[in-house]
Amino acid sequence: MAAVKYELIKTCGQTGARLGRVHTPHGSFDTPAFMPVGTQATVKGMSPAELKDVEAQIILSNTYHLYMRPGSDIVREAGGLHGFMGWDRPILTDSGGFQVFSLGGMRSIKEEGVTFKSHIDGSSHFISPERAIEIQNDLGADIIMAFDECIPYPCDYNYAKNSLERTSRWAKRCRDVHSDTERQSLFGIVQGGTFKDLRVQSANELLELDFPGYAIGGLSVGEPAAEMYDMLDVTVPLLPGDKPRYLMGVGSPDYLIEGSIRGIDMFDCVLPTRIGRNGTVMTGAGRIIIRDAKYARDYSPMDPECDCYACKNFTRSYIRHLIKAGEVLGIRLTTWHNLRFLLNLMKNVREAISEDRLGDFRNKFFSAFGYK
Amino acid sequence: MAAVKYELIKTCGQTGARLGRVHTPHGSFDTPAFMPVGTQATVKGMSPAELKDVEAQIILSNTYHLYMRPGSDIVREAGGLHGFMGWDRPILTDSGGFQVFSLGGMRSIKEEGVTFKSHIDGSSHFISPERAIEIQNDLGADIIMAFDECIPYPCDYNYAKNSLERTSRWAKRCRDVHSDTERQSLFGIVQGGTFKDLRVQSANELLELDFPGYAIGGLSVGEPAAEMYDMLDVTVPLLPGDKPRYLMGVGSPDYLIEGSIRGIDMFDCVLPTRIGRNGTVMTGAGRIIIRDAKYARDYSPMDPECDCYACKNFTRSYIRHLIKAGEVLGIRLTTWHNLRFLLNLMKNVREAISEDRLGDFRNKFFSAFGYK
Repeated sequence: MAAVKYELIKTCGQTGARLGRVHTPHGSFDTPAFMPVGTQATVKGMSPAELKDVEAQIILSNTYHLYMRPGSDIVREAGGLHGFMGWDRPILTDSGGFQVFSLGGMRSIKEEGVTFKSHIDGSSHFISPERAIEIQNDLGADIIMAFDECIPYPCDYNYAKNSLERTSRWAKRCRDVHSDTERQSLFGIVQGGTFKDLRVQSANELLELDFPGYAIGGLSVGEPAAEMYDMLDVTVPLLPGDKPRYLMGVGSPDYLIEGSIRGIDMFDCVLPTRIGRNGTVMTGAGRIIIRDAKYARDYSPMDPECDCYACKNFTRSYIRHLIKAGEVLGIRLTTWHNLRFLLNLMKNVREAISEDRLGDFRNKFFSAFGYK
Repeated sequence: MAAVKYELIKTCGQTGARLGRVHTPHGSFDTPAFMPVGTQATVKGMSPAELKDVEAQIILSNTYHLYMRPGSDIVREAGGLHGFMGWDRPILTDSGGFQVFSLGGMRSIKEEGVTFKSHIDGSSHFISPERAIEIQNDLGADIIMAFDECIPYPCDYNYAKNSLERTSRWAKRCRDVHSDTERQSLFGIVQGGTFKDLRVQSANELLELDFPGYAIGGLSVGEPAAEMYDMLDVTVPLLPGDKPRYLMGVGSPDYLIEGSIRGIDMFDCVLPTRIGRNGTVMTGAGRIIIRDAKYARDYSPMDPECDCYACKNFTRSYIRHLIKAGEVLGIRLTTWHNLRFLLNLMKNVREAISEDRLGDFRNKFFSAFGYK
């Protein structure tokens, strides 16, 4: 039996969004789902117990970073990522492709794989599709990703076409070398830049490889929102209805809702943790910059409607003080709240789907949050 | 009725150490007690809930820092430190003297008070004994401290004598201006450097002012341990048996035990949090540097005998990885453990006193920890 199985519960009568559940060897998670990012085997600032407190059901970790430090052999010896970081719920690892290609001049791409230099010590490394799977086998996540080539935005047609075709060839090599499909499910990644026909070509090539789940990569990299939605509109309908669909690197509230409406089941992004560390907080009424002087004597919670530990126990005044004073507790509390905010948003999205009113929910949320 | 009252429960038959309880408007704490330091209205890295988890019964915060940022008016408006930081157990604030005198060339001392420049923005400030009390009244801690002059070590006799006499005059001015003694208890601070007769003079001058508690300041500033113990041996017997005795700035395990043996009831120090942030961890078998390569594949807890969240859930290998990767969770876990270690040590000290075996406990602990 495949490690990961998608169960469709209901389709929203108003939008077509899917309410579902993904079953994995480490339990199930409800979809549409947002996955907090734990790049270095820790969601920055949060303990595993706190991740459960904000109701994270699955987290993502980054293969490239863990390969570099502490090394995938150490993670394997510790019982995989679950044992190493003390997280007993589902985990997804990316393939490392995105990070390797982000290194720019520090890497060279060949058909066999990619040679690159470590961002830590400059040492030389080589990652091929086979090696990316081997590392992810060591890490032991429930869902692992094919090694894909990530292209910049904007990107010319021929580059995007050559790249997606290589990504398809690499996806086959990944599939062929991943053996224990009952322990870990390997997802393919649709590429093709912002060209509709290339997205179709990529999806069709990957469908032939019959992956247990499909991701859409290379979006939310700087293109206008409308262009991203166009790509989803052309890609998602091609994907099989009985398998999960994962939109990579997306985590702003508007994209989460619009993605759900377009049939996406899974999302991940560093946004809630990253902006939290900069002192930006999401509330039902939009973003606030907690460092601003106007909050110095604001003795109300960050988000009066939130039920998280930070909002139930501390004021904007106190959290502003902590952030300005460089205190760790400050970024812990903003991170805690931002994660709770997005995970609660997804809960509301799921509830709206089950009641056939995700379109109404979208309009109300957008208006309150300040989106047009 | 005085805000703070000391209850003597028992004296150790083997050492003379005191088992007691201090009652305050925010509840009681058991003595000998270690007080974690929350300089900027937060014990670095820890939430109030976690401080309760490690069984902190009282914490200390720093007047100088809070005066500078966010300002004592904001703390007062938030309901005092208890309301501002969400801590409902006892709090002690220092007077700011130690920090002001640590500024070195940035301050000038006169009989009226001290003029100094902010470490944050270089702005000029003046703190007198009266102002130090006014600020501490705003902060609202259960125990507040007289504004004292802190001298360097080593220091010549005449300087130390003049300084302690000024500290006595300042102590009287503090006492005279502190009015709400039912809400906050003001402690005097014995100074006198490392000169026995000056310690006696200082204690006697302060006793005349009849404070509800006494601190011993200016120790653990670089002098040999034997010299500190000498000062305690000459000072403590002069202090009244029905009031708490607080040894300021002391927090290494040996000093905590030796101080308890000499009749000290309260201690504070940044040591457990500061060394934790540097990756140093206290265990029953001594200190370990968690960054060391030898822990890369050590899948045992930081301290196998510890019951804290960090030791029950994570390995040395994982925590080493977090610290080396600069992850906040790493310093959270080392801090968490170090605080638990010291607070548990004090619990063991209290238990040993109640069973008249603190001398035996000292010898066993010293031997296991690696002290001579």
